[in-house]
Amino acid sequence: MVTVDGGQATRRVDMLAGEEPLQILAAGPGQDPVEIAVTMRTPGHEDELAIGFLITEGLVTPADIDQVTLADPAEASRPDDSVVVHLRTPLDLARIVQRRTVATASCGICGTASIADVVRRCDQLPTGPVVDRSVLSRLPLRLRAAQETFETTGGLHAAGLFDTAGALLVLREDVGRHNALDKVIGASATTGSLPLHDTILLVSGRVSFELVQKAAVAGIPILVAIGAPTDLAVETAKALGMTLVGFLRGERFNVYSRPDRLGLTA
Amino acid sequence: MVTVDGGQATRRVDMLAGEEPLQILAAGPGQDPVEIAVTMRTPGHEDELAIGFLITEGLVTPADIDQVTLADPAEASRPDDSVVVHLRTPLDLARIVQRRTVATASCGICGTASIADVVRRCDQLPTGPVVDRSVLSRLPLRLRAAQETFETTGGLHAAGLFDTAGALLVLREDVGRHNALDKVIGASATTGSLPLHDTILLVSGRVSFELVQKAAVAGIPILVAIGAPTDLAVETAKALGMTLVGFLRGERFNVYSRPDRLGLTA
Repeated sequence: MVTVDGGQATRRVDMLAGEEPLQILAAGPGQDPVEIAVTMRTPGHEDELAIGFLITEGLVTPADIDQVTLADPAEASRPDDSVVVHLRTPLDLARIVQRRTVATASCGICGTASIADVVRRCDQLPTGPVVDRSVLSRLPLRLRAAQETFETTGGLHAAGLFDTAGALLVLREDVGRHNALDKVIGASATTGSLPLHDTILLVSGRVSFELVQKAAVAGIPILVAIGAPTDLAVETAKALGMTLVGFLRGERFNVYSRPDRLGLTA
Repeated sequence: MVTVDGGQATRRVDMLAGEEPLQILAAGPGQDPVEIAVTMRTPGHEDELAIGFLITEGLVTPADIDQVTLADPAEASRPDDSVVVHLRTPLDLARIVQRRTVATASCGICGTASIADVVRRCDQLPTGPVVDRSVLSRLPLRLRAAQETFETTGGLHAAGLFDTAGALLVLREDVGRHNALDKVIGASATTGSLPLHDTILLVSGRVSFELVQKAAVAGIPILVAIGAPTDLAVETAKALGMTLVGFLRGERFNVYSRPDRLGLTA
């Protein structure tokens, strides 16, 4: 790589964020593995990504999951490129076919892209918790301090799960913001922590509909972003009773829905 | 919306970036429209988005496209939610089925996610052009000045196409970075400007593999980003002979591939 600074050009070695395809397969007892999706992701935490993806896409529940194995290296070009999620219950092939019919170039949830559908698939979020607003302001620094990769590559999205006192529970990074969240939810599933009712989720970028619906499936009541939400993200958060915060900068932030969880009147 | 700033909470009206599903269909002469994808996008320029998407996914060539119509409002919940691209040649259903089999939750190109495949699908990029480095430094301000929506919502990605002297040719915005680029390429296709051999593309965010392959299909030789590229984006740019620039900040930037187009030695 060459770094240009005004008239000067310097040859340097650069750290780049990793991006590789991962094939996610699932198999019920005695079933052959079925390909569910291929996603571009940053290598690492493949098992969590696969579990989180299947859960947040509504294809399985945490109780369905038995174990995750890497695909047979003899069958894959690189062993890390495929993971198989083994289920305790038969895979609902009809649901997968239905999902695939509407699968898309841009995001997997588009087929289920109606707010009503997300509301139907999610359990109601709890009324609480109520969080001290000063807790929110401390989260970004804690996330950045915990990020090992971000400072060197500058190319990764981060998702951090915190308890209501602001202590970091899980941090995951990825080139895809939805993958970072899937990894957080998958990690929580493997420790039996779902639904995540007493938590705050902080994401480093913007908030799309997809992030709101994935957080809702995991039962997260408070979603906080450094960046902006879309209109559909706000509408969905309102319909689900989720507290959605955007543009968090120091002590300043916007609350788009359910301000009561931050001690504010609606 | 409530804005919190330290101890103060103020009720405000906010501008949010729009995010709505768009169904993209295609039909050959005398064929019924076939659904190709449903994508979450910012409303506006639906025809360009559909055309750009079909071209950059390798499903059609610019010469195949006859016209774009909104779907029958009687059949869709909202007329803007569906567009049909009418083709002069029969739709290659086998290619669409193949694509859909590997379609994914996260990005549509994952099925074609090998560099070799992208190289095979793209014509070789031209050797030139050679661009004065000072031109690059002026692009971000010109992009920002031309962005109508960004300053108010803060939630949109931008893709700007410039000539080699740094004059803005096309600017498009979207909640999805790939959509912003598809709109730029679709707009260029409708004016008969493909391949875009004497242009520079500037994107507001990070660069994934997907953006490199879409730019390459359109023949764009120089891709410049405000943010970071992934490792796969760099590998792909090298394989395609594309000049890839990242972290553009004033007069400082990194060149990851083909620095000769910026008058630098490799």
